[in-house]
Amino acid sequence: MRFFRLSSLRLPSVRHTTLRLSALRLSSLLIALAGIAFGQLAVAAPKSVILIIGDGFDDVHVTMGRNYLSGQGGTLTLDTMPFRAAVQVETVDENGNPIYVADSANTATTLATGSVTRIGRVGKDRDDESVTTVLEAAASAGYKTGIVSTASVTDATPASFAAHVGVRACENPVTIRGGEKYGVTFPGCPADLVENGGAGSIAEQLATANVDVILGGGMEHFAAQFESNPTALDKATASGATVLTSATQLNASYNGRVIGLFSDDTMPVQWQGSDGRSAEDIERSWLNLAHEMIGSITPPETISCVDNPSFEAMPSLEAMTRFAIDHLERENEKGFFLTIESASIDKKSHVRDPCGSIGEIAQLEQALNAALEYAAANPETLILVTADHAQAAQIVPDPTLYTGLPIPVFSPGKVARIETPEGSIMRINYATNNIQSEEHTGANVPLFANTEGNKVLTPFMRQREIYQAMMQYLEL
Amino acid sequence: MRFFRLSSLRLPSVRHTTLRLSALRLSSLLIALAGIAFGQLAVAAPKSVILIIGDGFDDVHVTMGRNYLSGQGGTLTLDTMPFRAAVQVETVDENGNPIYVADSANTATTLATGSVTRIGRVGKDRDDESVTTVLEAAASAGYKTGIVSTASVTDATPASFAAHVGVRACENPVTIRGGEKYGVTFPGCPADLVENGGAGSIAEQLATANVDVILGGGMEHFAAQFESNPTALDKATASGATVLTSATQLNASYNGRVIGLFSDDTMPVQWQGSDGRSAEDIERSWLNLAHEMIGSITPPETISCVDNPSFEAMPSLEAMTRFAIDHLERENEKGFFLTIESASIDKKSHVRDPCGSIGEIAQLEQALNAALEYAAANPETLILVTADHAQAAQIVPDPTLYTGLPIPVFSPGKVARIETPEGSIMRINYATNNIQSEEHTGANVPLFANTEGNKVLTPFMRQREIYQAMMQYLEL
Repeated sequence: MRFFRLSSLRLPSVRHTTLRLSALRLSSLLIALAGIAFGQLAVAAPKSVILIIGDGFDDVHVTMGRNYLSGQGGTLTLDTMPFRAAVQVETVDENGNPIYVADSANTATTLATGSVTRIGRVGKDRDDESVTTVLEAAASAGYKTGIVSTASVTDATPASFAAHVGVRACENPVTIRGGEKYGVTFPGCPADLVENGGAGSIAEQLATANVDVILGGGMEHFAAQFESNPTALDKATASGATVLTSATQLNASYNGRVIGLFSDDTMPVQWQGSDGRSAEDIERSWLNLAHEMIGSITPPETISCVDNPSFEAMPSLEAMTRFAIDHLERENEKGFFLTIESASIDKKSHVRDPCGSIGEIAQLEQALNAALEYAAANPETLILVTADHAQAAQIVPDPTLYTGLPIPVFSPGKVARIETPEGSIMRINYATNNIQSEEHTGANVPLFANTEGNKVLTPFMRQREIYQAMMQYLEL
Repeated sequence: MRFFRLSSLRLPSVRHTTLRLSALRLSSLLIALAGIAFGQLAVAAPKSVILIIGDGFDDVHVTMGRNYLSGQGGTLTLDTMPFRAAVQVETVDENGNPIYVADSANTATTLATGSVTRIGRVGKDRDDESVTTVLEAAASAGYKTGIVSTASVTDATPASFAAHVGVRACENPVTIRGGEKYGVTFPGCPADLVENGGAGSIAEQLATANVDVILGGGMEHFAAQFESNPTALDKATASGATVLTSATQLNASYNGRVIGLFSDDTMPVQWQGSDGRSAEDIERSWLNLAHEMIGSITPPETISCVDNPSFEAMPSLEAMTRFAIDHLERENEKGFFLTIESASIDKKSHVRDPCGSIGEIAQLEQALNAALEYAAANPETLILVTADHAQAAQIVPDPTLYTGLPIPVFSPGKVARIETPEGSIMRINYATNNIQSEEHTGANVPLFANTEGNKVLTPFMRQREIYQAMMQYLEL
C-alpha cells in the first residue's frame, strides 16, 4: 500500500527490522486515515535523496560558472534553488587537531558518514576504523542506492560512499600494495588487503557492494590484476552485476546491479581551452626580468572555450544521472539515495584549465536539471548540491586595478584570460604553488537545496551535519 | 500615537508627503483597532535598517575569521543569523559591458542606489549622473540616518551613501582638483567642483549632508584647504554639526547632527601580526634559486595576532555603532537607516596582513552584536551584513598537500602562517600581483540577515536588489 507519511504519526518501532512490516502497516493505516480526514487520497510517496557534489565547487567557481554560462547579470539553475547555506569544511590530524584545508577523501567521508577525519581517508574515521555511510544505511533500510561520477568511480569522492580504505590511492588490487609514484614511496593499505582480513581495494569493494548502480570512469582499476587473483571486474561479473562500457548502452534498461565504466580513469571533460591552452605565465620583457618594476609585460592572449574531442564517446553527466534515476525509481516504492559528482571542476582547477572547470559546471547544471525534473514528479525528493572543499582559482581584474601605475603589474602565478559569451574577458589566476598541480584552498562552501531542504537544513552547517540531515530525511 | 503597522492595512497614500499625516492617523486608528481586536496594545514600532558592510569580506575572509575567532568547529555570531544568501557583484565599463572584478566605490554605489556602475564612481551611475541613495531617500521620508566606518568617512564605501563624485579620490577640496600621485596624473573631478556648479568634494558634501550621525576617520580630508576657501570642517561647524574628535566624547549625548573624525585617514586597526609581520616570501636556498625543482625552501616562521598599540586611542567599531544607534533612536518614532563599515578587512588584505583583517572581522562581529541587541528590543529592524566585493587572501594547506613529493613546493606569492588560538596553523596566501597592494577578486559575496530579512530577501540576489530590498522594507 502506498501512502503519504506524517512524521508525527511515525512509530519508533519502524526502526527495528523485525517489527518493520507490522509497524509500517499500522502506520500506513493511521496515515491513510489521517489523509482521508484531510480530504487527501492515500497515494504513493517514495522518499529519496539526491546529493550532487561539485568537487572543488566553491563560491569562486560558482561565480566563474555563472559569469561564463549565464552572464554577469544571469542566473544559473543553482541560483534559482529556494534554499542556500554555507558549509564549514572540517579536517583533523592524527591527534584530532584542526587542519584548515581539506582533500576530497576526508570531506567526502564526512559528507558520507558524519565523521570528521584525516586527509586521504576513504570511509574511515581518524582512527582508521570503517564508518557506515548514508548510502550503506539507506541500502540496509531497503532504499535503492546509486553512485555517479565523472571521475573514476574508485576516486575518493564517489568511493567514500561505499568503500573503506586507509589511503585514497588504494584504488585497485595493485596500488593497494603500495609502490613508488612521482619519486614517493607509498606504503599502500596493508590493513585493507583481503589476505590480511580487510575488504580489499576500492575497486574490489565496489565490485560487490550493495549499490544498485555505479557509473563513471575507472576501468583500469577494475581491470588491474595482482598475480593471478581475480580482478575487480571478475568479481563484479561473478556477483551478477551488469557491466556497461559504452555510452550507448545507457539507452537500454537492465535488471539488477549495474556498473558502468566508460573510461580508464577520470572521464574526459566536455570543454577545453582553444588550442588546448590553459593558464600561462605572463610574458616579461628582458628589462622586466632584470627588475620587475621596469620594462614591460604582456599578458597571455585570450582563450575561448571549445569542445573537447575526447568527450565525444563519453556519456554526459546528465545521461548518467537520467539512467541512474530511471534505474533506481523502477519498481521502487521506497525511494533511493543517489550521489552524483562533477569531479573535474576540481581536477581542471588543479591543472589551471578554467574552460575545463567551467564545462564541468555546465555538466553539473544539466545533471541538476534532470534531478529537478524527477523531484517535480516526486515531491518527497531532497536535492542537495554542495562542494567538498574550496579550490585554487581566483577571478582577478583584467587588466589590473592598478592600471594607471607606471610599473608593470602582474600575477606571480599563471593566468588565463577567458572570452565570455557576453563579450567580456574573465581573467583567472592560479597561484597557490609552483608545481604541476595547484593546492586546494580553505573556505566555507555553498549548499543549495530544493524546498525539501527546509525540513532538515539550516543557513550555516558543517559537512557532518549534511550527513545527519540526509539520515534524518530518510528516517535512518 | 504609537502603533504596530500591519502592511495589509497600510494605505498607498502614505507615500505622498502631503497626505502623510492624515493617512497615518487613519492607518493608526485602523491598526490600533486591529490590535485591540487581536488582544494587543497599540504601541510603537519604529522601522529601521542597519546595513553592515565588511569591505572585502568574502567567504574566504568569513572562514579566516571563523577559524581564528571561534575555531574550526565554532560559530561566529554571523553563523547564527537565520538568513543567508549569496550576492552577485556587478560592475560595468563605459559601454555597459560586464567587468568581473569590482572596486568598493562602484559596489557601494550599487548597494546604496541600485545602479550598476563603473569602477571609481561614488553615488553616480555609469553616465556620471548622481543617483539618489537609500540613505537620502530615507532622510527625505523622515527617517534618521547614519554612517559609521573604520575608514575615512570620505572613503568610497561610506561616501557612496551620501555623496556624489565622479572619481573616488575626490575626497577633499585639494584632491578634487587632481594632481599626481605614485607617478600617475589624476584629473580630479572638474564637474564636481563647486565653482563649476558641482556639489564639491566628498568631505564638503558630507559636511553639510542631511545625515544625523557620521563617525569614522578622515580628519585630514575635512581639514584640507584649497587656497583660502573654507574647509569641510568649517562648513560642518557653520552648518551646526557637532564635531567630535576623541573616543571619550562618544560617552556623552548630543543634539542635532554629529560628525566624529577620530583619525587623519583610515582608523588604525585593532590587531597586527607579532613583530609587525605580515605575509612574506618563502626563503629559497641558493640551489632552489638556481632551479626551483631542487634545493630547499623554508616557509616563514609563524605569526601570532597581537594588539596594535595605535588602536588604543580609537573608539571601537562597536562603540561607534552603539553611539550611532543611541543617537538615531532618541526621540525617534519613525526609525532610521544606518550603514556601518568594517573597512580594513579589505585594506589589510591589500597589504597582506591577515591579523589586521581578522581583527577587523572581530570588530564587525562586535558591531553586529550591538545591532542585534537593538533589534531584540525593536523587532522591526532589518539587519543586513554583506560584503562589497571579494578579496585576494586564500587559505592554503600548511604544509602543501604535496608534502610527499621530493621537490620544493611553495607559493609564488607571499604567505603568512597564523597561529590560531586552538593551536593549529592557518596559512594565508596572497598572490594576485607583484606590487604593494593586492588585487580585488571576483566571487559572489555572502549576505546575512536577521528574521526580518525573510520579508524582502531571496537566497540569490544581486547587489542592486539589496538596495531594492532596503527601500521596500522602509516603504520608500
